[in-house]
Amino acid sequence: MGGISFVQVQDYSGRTQAVFETEIPSKMGDAVEIIGMVKEEPRSKSGFELQGKEVGIISTSVEEYPFDLAKPKFDLQLTTLLDNRPLSLRHPKVQAIFKLYDILLEAYEAAMREEGFTEIKTPKLLEAASEGGANFFKIDYFGRNAYLAQSPQLYKQIMVGVFERVFEIGSVFRAEPHFTTRHVNEYIGLDAEMGFIKDYTDITAALNRVIAKIFRAFTLKGGQYLKEYGVELTEVPEKIPHVKLSEAKIKIQNKYNYYVPEGTDIDPEGERLIGRYIKEEFNSDFVFLTHYPFETRPFYTMRSAENKNETYGFDLLYKGMEIATGGQREHLYAPLMENMKEKNVSTKGLDFYLNVFKFAMPPHGGWGMGSERIIQQVLGLGSVKEAVLFPRDVKRLSP
Amino acid sequence: MGGISFVQVQDYSGRTQAVFETEIPSKMGDAVEIIGMVKEEPRSKSGFELQGKEVGIISTSVEEYPFDLAKPKFDLQLTTLLDNRPLSLRHPKVQAIFKLYDILLEAYEAAMREEGFTEIKTPKLLEAASEGGANFFKIDYFGRNAYLAQSPQLYKQIMVGVFERVFEIGSVFRAEPHFTTRHVNEYIGLDAEMGFIKDYTDITAALNRVIAKIFRAFTLKGGQYLKEYGVELTEVPEKIPHVKLSEAKIKIQNKYNYYVPEGTDIDPEGERLIGRYIKEEFNSDFVFLTHYPFETRPFYTMRSAENKNETYGFDLLYKGMEIATGGQREHLYAPLMENMKEKNVSTKGLDFYLNVFKFAMPPHGGWGMGSERIIQQVLGLGSVKEAVLFPRDVKRLSP
Repeated sequence: MGGISFVQVQDYSGRTQAVFETEIPSKMGDAVEIIGMVKEEPRSKSGFELQGKEVGIISTSVEEYPFDLAKPKFDLQLTTLLDNRPLSLRHPKVQAIFKLYDILLEAYEAAMREEGFTEIKTPKLLEAASEGGANFFKIDYFGRNAYLAQSPQLYKQIMVGVFERVFEIGSVFRAEPHFTTRHVNEYIGLDAEMGFIKDYTDITAALNRVIAKIFRAFTLKGGQYLKEYGVELTEVPEKIPHVKLSEAKIKIQNKYNYYVPEGTDIDPEGERLIGRYIKEEFNSDFVFLTHYPFETRPFYTMRSAENKNETYGFDLLYKGMEIATGGQREHLYAPLMENMKEKNVSTKGLDFYLNVFKFAMPPHGGWGMGSERIIQQVLGLGSVKEAVLFPRDVKRLSP
Repeated sequence: MGGISFVQVQDYSGRTQAVFETEIPSKMGDAVEIIGMVKEEPRSKSGFELQGKEVGIISTSVEEYPFDLAKPKFDLQLTTLLDNRPLSLRHPKVQAIFKLYDILLEAYEAAMREEGFTEIKTPKLLEAASEGGANFFKIDYFGRNAYLAQSPQLYKQIMVGVFERVFEIGSVFRAEPHFTTRHVNEYIGLDAEMGFIKDYTDITAALNRVIAKIFRAFTLKGGQYLKEYGVELTEVPEKIPHVKLSEAKIKIQNKYNYYVPEGTDIDPEGERLIGRYIKEEFNSDFVFLTHYPFETRPFYTMRSAENKNETYGFDLLYKGMEIATGGQREHLYAPLMENMKEKNVSTKGLDFYLNVFKFAMPPHGGWGMGSERIIQQVLGLGSVKEAVLFPRDVKRLSP
C-alpha cells in the first residue's frame, strides 16, 4: 500500500499486526526477526501493533503452504487438518486448543497437589492383558508377549496402600476399532485414586473441587483461547447434582420418550438427553450419574450394599458427554475374588495386584478422565481428534 | 510394656510413634483409625508423638508380611525389593524415593513454565521405527506393524514451529537388551525443545536454570527424604562448566591414564573419571560435555561449523553419570537430508517430519532427561530400578 507494508506476525503469545514504512521482502510463514516498537492500538484484535523498523529473515519457506495461515477463519476438513498437522497447528485457531490443553495439565497437577495427592508414573508395558478387557495392543517384548496398559487402574490402587492419595497423567492405549468422534486409540488419562474414604461421595466431592479449579483456570488464563471458539464458561456448581443412572433412564423416558434398557450402560444419545434433563432441571452442565449396574463395570468396582446388581461406580457428564469414570473399589480380598469369578475374569498374571488385598487395603476409589475429551467439550469441537496433537485411530498412525 | 503400648503409625506424610495406655489389638500393617492428641516430642525422629485414646481397625492383614516394615533399616536384595514391590513400597525409606520423584515432576513443570515452555503430549504409537535406531518395540496395530516411541524427538521439533518452546513429560520405550544398573526398558523422559536460539549455549543455559530450580526444590521440600539417604545437596553452579568431549578425553588420559578413542562416545568409567576431574578442577558436580562426534549422534544433530566431524550435541553429567542429552538440531532441509544420507537413515515414514523443514523452521534445540536417573544419582541408589515404581527390564514385566 504505497510503500507501506502491513504484516501479520505471530509468536508463542499470539498474533498481531506489524506496520513497516517500506516494502518487506518476506512471505507467508517465514521465521523473522523484527526490530521495532510495540504500540497500543485499540482497533487491532490483540490491542497492540508493532511499528517495524528493521526485519531480518531467519529462515524461509521453500515450498507453498497448502492453506492460508493469514486468514482468521480456518475451517479445513478434518482429514486435511490432520494430514497436514505440522503446518495446520501453526494457525492461531488450532494453537488455541493446545494452549488450553496446557492450562488443563497445569491446573490438574496443581489441584491434585492441593488435595494432598502424590504424582506417580506407572508402567505401560504389562505382562498380562488384565482388567478383563479384550482391547489391548500386543507387543513383542524380547521374544515374549506383552501388552500396552489400557489404564493405570491396578497400579494406582496398589499405590493407595503406599501414599493414600495418588494421581497420574499418562498415556492410555485402547485397541478399540471405533470410528466415532469421541474415541482415539491413544490418549492422555488424568487418573486419581484415594484411600480412607467413607464412601464414593468422598471421591465425587474431590473430583467436583478439581473440576471447579480446572474451569476457573480456563477462565482466568485461557480467556483469549475460549474466545477463539466463542465460548464463555459458567462456574462449576459447588455441588454437582448426583443422579442414579436407573432414575436418569426413567426421567429421559418420561420426558423425551427415549428408552434405555435396565442393567445396561447408557448410549451417547441417552447421555445427551440426560445432559439436557439436568440442564433443564438443575441448571447444571455437569451431573454425576451413580450406581452403574455391576454388569457394565469392571470386576474391581465395589457393589452397592443395598442392591448387588448395582455398584458404587459413577460417570461424570459434562454437557451430555462422559468426561470421567470412577467409583469406589472393592478393597477386601474375598469379595474381590468373587467378583472376578462372577465376571469370568482370569486371575492369571494378576497375583501382584490381588495379593495386595491380603494386606489391609483401606476403602478407596478414584477416577479416570480423558484429558482431550474435556477440551473437546469445552470448545465444542466436532471430534476429539481435534484436541489431540497427533491423533491415532484405526487408520491413522501418522503424522 | 505394663499395659502401655507403643505403636508406629504412618500416613502419607511420614511415620511417627503413638502411645496408648492400653493394649492395642492391632498388628503390623493394619489400616487403622486413631483418635488422640498430637504432642511435640523432641526425642522422636518426627518431632511429634501421638497420644492415642481410641483405635479402630479399618482393614487388617490376612497374611504375614514377607519382611519387617517396622525397622528403620530396610536393605533388601534388589530382587526381593522388586518382586515384592506393592509391599516394599510401603517402607518409609522406599517411599522417600518417590516423594522426591513427585517433587522432581512438580519442579520440572514449574520451571519449564517459568521459562515460557508450553506442555505438550505427543504420540507413543508410531508408524515407522524412526531416528535410525534399532531399539524399537514392535506392536500389532489392527493387523499392521507399529512401533513404540523411543523419544518424542521428531514431534517436539515439529512443535517448535508451533509454540517456539515446548516440553513433555512422557513414557519412553527402549528395546535395549541391557543388563546394567543404569538402564530400564521403560522410563519417563523430561523433554524440551526451544526455537529462535543463537546457538547451543542458549539450550545449556536454560537447562542449567531448570536443574538449579529442581535442586532447590529438592532441598526446600525434600529435606526429610534426602535425610533418609544421608544426602546433603549443594547448590547448582550458576554457570555449569562446559568442556569439549575431546578435551575431557585428553584430561582423563593425562590425569588418570584412562584412554577413550577419538570419535567415539564415552563409556561409564570414562564418565565417572570426567566427573572426578571436573570436581577436582572446578569443584562442580555438574559438567556439560559438548561437541560430541557426529558419528555418535543422531542424524538430526547440527554439525559444528568449524569441524564437520563434531556436532553441537552435548551431555549433562551429574556426579559422573549422564542425566541429560541434548543439542542444537539441523533446521535446514538440505543439510538435514545430507546428514541422513551420510548416516544411511531411511526417510521412509518420516515425510511428515522432513517436510516441516521446508517451512521456515527457526534454529532450535533441546534436551531429554531421564527422570529416574536424576533421582538415582541424587540419592546414590545402586540401581536406577530402585527409582522406578514398577521397573521393566529384559526379564521383568511384573509386578
